Amino acid sequence: MHFVFRIQKNCHHTRARAGIFHTPHGKIHTPTFISCGTKATVKAMTPEELKNLGAEIILANTYHLMLRPGADLIAKMGGLHQWMHWDRPLLTDSGGFQVFSLADRRKILQNGVEFRSHLDGTKHFLTPEKAIRIQEKLGADIIMCFDECAPGDSDKKYTREAMIRTHQWAKICKKTHENHCHPEPVEGYNEKHIVQKFPQALFPIIQGGIFSDLRIESTKFMADLDFPGIAIGGLSVGESKEDMYHVLEIIEPHLPKQKLHYLMGVGNPEDIVEAVARGVDMFDCVLPTRYARHGAFFAENERKHIKNACYIKDKQPLVKNCACYSCQNYTRSYLRHLCMENEILGSRLLSIHNLHFLLELMRTIRKQIEKGTFEHFYRQFPWRIKKNSKKK
Amino acid sequence: MHFVFRIQKNCHHTRARAGIFHTPHGKIHTPTFISCGTKATVKAMTPEELKNLGAEIILANTYHLMLRPGADLIAKMGGLHQWMHWDRPLLTDSGGFQVFSLADRRKILQNGVEFRSHLDGTKHFLTPEKAIRIQEKLGADIIMCFDECAPGDSDKKYTREAMIRTHQWAKICKKTHENHCHPEPVEGYNEKHIVQKFPQALFPIIQGGIFSDLRIESTKFMADLDFPGIAIGGLSVGESKEDMYHVLEIIEPHLPKQKLHYLMGVGNPEDIVEAVARGVDMFDCVLPTRYARHGAFFAENERKHIKNACYIKDKQPLVKNCACYSCQNYTRSYLRHLCMENEILGSRLLSIHNLHFLLELMRTIRKQIEKGTFEHFYRQFPWRIKKNSKKK
Repeated sequence: MHFVFRIQKNCHHTRARAGIFHTPHGKIHTPTFISCGTKATVKAMTPEELKNLGAEIILANTYHLMLRPGADLIAKMGGLHQWMHWDRPLLTDSGGFQVFSLADRRKILQNGVEFRSHLDGTKHFLTPEKAIRIQEKLGADIIMCFDECAPGDSDKKYTREAMIRTHQWAKICKKTHENHCHPEPVEGYNEKHIVQKFPQALFPIIQGGIFSDLRIESTKFMADLDFPGIAIGGLSVGESKEDMYHVLEIIEPHLPKQKLHYLMGVGNPEDIVEAVARGVDMFDCVLPTRYARHGAFFAENERKHIKNACYIKDKQPLVKNCACYSCQNYTRSYLRHLCMENEILGSRLLSIHNLHFLLELMRTIRKQIEKGTFEHFYRQFPWRIKKNSKKK
Repeated sequence: MHFVFRIQKNCHHTRARAGIFHTPHGKIHTPTFISCGTKATVKAMTPEELKNLGAEIILANTYHLMLRPGADLIAKMGGLHQWMHWDRPLLTDSGGFQVFSLADRRKILQNGVEFRSHLDGTKHFLTPEKAIRIQEKLGADIIMCFDECAPGDSDKKYTREAMIRTHQWAKICKKTHENHCHPEPVEGYNEKHIVQKFPQALFPIIQGGIFSDLRIESTKFMADLDFPGIAIGGLSVGESKEDMYHVLEIIEPHLPKQKLHYLMGVGNPEDIVEAVARGVDMFDCVLPTRYARHGAFFAENERKHIKNACYIKDKQPLVKNCACYSCQNYTRSYLRHLCMENEILGSRLLSIHNLHFLLELMRTIRKQIEKGTFEHFYRQFPWRIKKNSKKK
């Protein structure tokens, strides 16, 4: 029963779907948003607060954790779930995105990537095999294939090469993961293998930049490998919103219908709604908590900044009628003061609000799909209207 | 019935007492510890978390709040309680300690202190009258007289001058506060007076450095002015622990027995226990939360540092059998990781632990006094024994 995705309702006018993904640590109701806990903590939040917000899944990052404190340590401490006190579904990213973001500090080879740590300059070599072994040690429910995310401004030739490597690596990741109960030795990685407490689902990542033919080729390739879910990478990396929506649109017919579709690194409300309408079931993004630490919050139809002088004497909550703890108990005036003074409580209260906003949006989207009214909701979605009106 | 202090039990062997102080926002069971919310937030904590820890009173600081965001703003927002979402007893310090800490940025005149803001260099003039008016606007339950805290290394002549000024200012503060319903205009402070929602208790601050005769003189002077409580300032400012304990010992016979005794700026467990044995009922200190943000935590008999390498693989909680949320749910290994990575959750979890530790200590002290076993507890107190053994 693990890693089964059951679609409960399809929208008749868009490609939106409502479903449930089953994992060893519980169900995930989709469409869903993953709160990012890069270094094994969703910044400024406790697990209990995340649960109170209705978070069903969070993620942590292989790149950061392999460098500090190391996957072996976390395995010895009982795995990521136990170590970080989170008993619901958990996903680890493969580290591919972070390694390739190192730009001049990494060297791409056919079998992996050599890179220098952003922390101390030490040299590391990450391969598809290692990315899987590390993620097995961390023990998340969903783990990701090691991929190469080409920069948004790459030409077609380079984008294609990166895509081909990503495809080959996906096959290696799959084979490595299938052998996880009888692990083969991985070169340059001699540490004792930790036998998994729980089964894990491996997802591949579609690449191909903004090139329609590459994206379709990549989607078909990954679909053929038959993973329990499929991720879309390399979007929201500098391309226009039109390009992002277009890519989602053209790959949708080629995505395996019965599998979970996960769009990586996207968390703006208008993008989420557009992507759900194009068949996406799951999102993650660091922005809700990062925005919060910089004083930005999700308002009715746009992002606003609490440090703005207009809020000095404002007795309103961040968002009228918002049910979150921050809006129920604090005024913009006080929140502005906290953020101006760099008080931790300011980051906390804005993080709670922003995460609540997105998780509530996901619940609303789900309800709209269930009721058969998603298309109307989508058309009227205030963030979408605001963005479109700005373009004109 | 407000600001009545009822002593419930006296220790027969020491000067310790257990009592209840009544305020318009509820009771304070003494001996008690005040968590410091300098800028109208106890750093990293929500009011609900403080209540869950059993905090009955917190404090905020006049100096910081008069500069940013200003007392008038807070008054307009309904006062400090409402603004910061805290409905239990609240105390504001007068700003004296902070202003005198500015050293070369302040000039002491007979009627007040001229100083430049540490934030932007703007010039301000704080007088006893203004300190009271500002604190009336903030609206805390307990407000403090404007005092001059002479540096710990001051000679007797200077210490005496500062004490005399503090005495004169205490008389002015008292007169100003008694007129608060029909306020007289205060020179250089023309803003409209805010009528108080709740009555406030004004406490004076004993000064006199480490000089026994000055301390006794100051204690007698303040006792004669007949305030509802009395504070001891100018300790824990660089003098030795022996000097601090000695001062508490020699002034105790001159303190009004039926009034609350508040020792300012002291929060080390061994100092708290020593001071309670010398008749102190209330303490405040920024250290529990400041230590936390630097990775230090209260352990069984001393302060320890979570960033120490010995905790890398440590599956123990911070303190065995500690009932706090942090110790119930996280290992030293994980907490070390959070603090090494400067994660906000690390500051939060250590703040919870340190505040729990002190508030639990205060509850234990109270129980020991009630049971008549405080002296034994005091003699056996592990922090005290550890400190004494180090001295030998």
